[in-house]
Amino acid sequence: MSGPGDTVRLAHGAGGEAMRALIEDVFLRGVVDAEARAMDDGAAIPFGDRWLVVTTDAHVVQPAFFPGGDIGRLSVCGTVNDLAMMGATELVALTATVIVEEGYSIADLRRVAASMRAACDEAGARLLAGDTKVMRKGELDGLALSSSGVALADRVVRGGGVRAGDAILITGTIGDHGLAVLGARHQLGLGDALRSDVAPLNGLVRAALAAGGDAVHAMKDPTRGGVTSALTELARASGVAVRLDEDALPYTDAARAAAELLGIDPLVVANEGKALLAVAPDAAPRVIAALRAHPLGARAAIIGRAVAGEPGEVVLDTGFGTRRLRERDGDPLPRIC
Amino acid sequence: MSGPGDTVRLAHGAGGEAMRALIEDVFLRGVVDAEARAMDDGAAIPFGDRWLVVTTDAHVVQPAFFPGGDIGRLSVCGTVNDLAMMGATELVALTATVIVEEGYSIADLRRVAASMRAACDEAGARLLAGDTKVMRKGELDGLALSSSGVALADRVVRGGGVRAGDAILITGTIGDHGLAVLGARHQLGLGDALRSDVAPLNGLVRAALAAGGDAVHAMKDPTRGGVTSALTELARASGVAVRLDEDALPYTDAARAAAELLGIDPLVVANEGKALLAVAPDAAPRVIAALRAHPLGARAAIIGRAVAGEPGEVVLDTGFGTRRLRERDGDPLPRIC
Repeated sequence: MSGPGDTVRLAHGAGGEAMRALIEDVFLRGVVDAEARAMDDGAAIPFGDRWLVVTTDAHVVQPAFFPGGDIGRLSVCGTVNDLAMMGATELVALTATVIVEEGYSIADLRRVAASMRAACDEAGARLLAGDTKVMRKGELDGLALSSSGVALADRVVRGGGVRAGDAILITGTIGDHGLAVLGARHQLGLGDALRSDVAPLNGLVRAALAAGGDAVHAMKDPTRGGVTSALTELARASGVAVRLDEDALPYTDAARAAAELLGIDPLVVANEGKALLAVAPDAAPRVIAALRAHPLGARAAIIGRAVAGEPGEVVLDTGFGTRRLRERDGDPLPRIC
Repeated sequence: MSGPGDTVRLAHGAGGEAMRALIEDVFLRGVVDAEARAMDDGAAIPFGDRWLVVTTDAHVVQPAFFPGGDIGRLSVCGTVNDLAMMGATELVALTATVIVEEGYSIADLRRVAASMRAACDEAGARLLAGDTKVMRKGELDGLALSSSGVALADRVVRGGGVRAGDAILITGTIGDHGLAVLGARHQLGLGDALRSDVAPLNGLVRAALAAGGDAVHAMKDPTRGGVTSALTELARASGVAVRLDEDALPYTDAARAAAELLGIDPLVVANEGKALLAVAPDAAPRVIAALRAHPLGARAAIIGRAVAGEPGEVVLDTGFGTRRLRERDGDPLPRIC
């Protein structure tokens, strides 16, 4: 997949095909344990009569402070959400590392720390261990955080569990995080309305699982690569295709406006407080009701369905025809998360 | 402890007093859960009738490849060793994140991955989840890794457990990692003899605990800040002082030569495959015997003892008198690990 003179490209971090190729090629084949290779958001290991789920995330978002959140909140929520997507909503412990550039403002570091604490409180998570490293001025652009988490699950929800016929649900509006970060970076000046959705989803997922039980066949949070990449991965892992109904896709007005101004499809932009769920069709109404009853799920919607077809194919029905959704590999959006 | 205009200094990453002040001030007080504040190498939570121990480490060593190891091996061993220092030698899972600069050689990334795999195999560890982020050219100097780990312990060994009268043991020669990295950076040309000691210590610690049992009162790996910082922290947490016997300190000839050339005290330089143990004096001989029977403990030695005195004071008995060992805060050694 890569030759001896090859180097890392920005697309390797973009969340699409190139990233999967690099990760599969270099890390999964070589390093990560075989049983974790299912490309779920984390790994689950049998633990007594339950499952222990572990996951980890790195964050390098730029700017580190953006409308609706910051890198600290992102770091905690990223890990809490990866655990939640596997059904592991009973958090045991989080850990975090902070790599910081010499000369970084300690007041800003304090803001990041306070934000991590607040996100932990929201999630009911405990950050139990940390490490800090300092790099010389010019060796790192500001701040890089990594977090990892451990949680327990009675049942593990796998990315490969989607069945043809399943309803595809999203828990709210699309593209808010990525568009808010890009809006801040490019100073679009759309005001307070364009805000990241970054939030811990374990409570929302708990509510969905309580309502849907085993009828919730798969979950994934559409972070890097957005809804398009997340559905492509779910569909590919499950051997199905997905058909989305464009009219059903929820957006805020601010996100629509920002996407238009930036010329970016919101379906390929990262979300940090949303989940996609594949649910048996008869259970979908009660899962939607449970999601909408939660503050983070008010705009939950059924946006499409899984169908028999080319595994991994995601098609958008525009009402006037269909177009295949493609992952954004050629033109990456670096440091969105 | 810091004013509004203050910024991060290199000393904040050096492993001594300034780092503890920053971490305690910004992160421990604000973020990390109260029960984890004992400043152990990780955190332990009750789990059935056992303990679940979690820890995390970031690594930014430069150069990333050095005699005796590389950043990948360092990352795995750092986490395995932090767990082992708390008595948690039964590894459940490791996770890792890789942040890489655009343009980084994929061949080098492969070497790092292979090295992580080899270190996991040596430790009997399974790397179960990972994440990769790419930063633009110039935004990161090469590569930064973070790792975290989960392990089980029947008994947690705490850093605050040293008692006056305990023998202080080290499992082998002092300063090898830091001096090898500095030697590579400054191209000292001392040849193959100057090599990092980076190694997973869980097997060695298991042997020590099997021999010493409850008589092993505390353990710590002397990484950043070296033997001086590690003993200062152990002694302070335990309310004792430590007196070291200079003649008993084990060094390789290459490390002695490098320390001389660089003008650096090997006692403040990072080790990555060594542990300090505080052991009840009657049990010390059998713990030393167990350590020496293990390939990683051949040069284990009793290097001093804990005494009643100013908590945290570490004194070196040179045979001609004594001098107090001070942590290296004014002149940090950045990116040694």
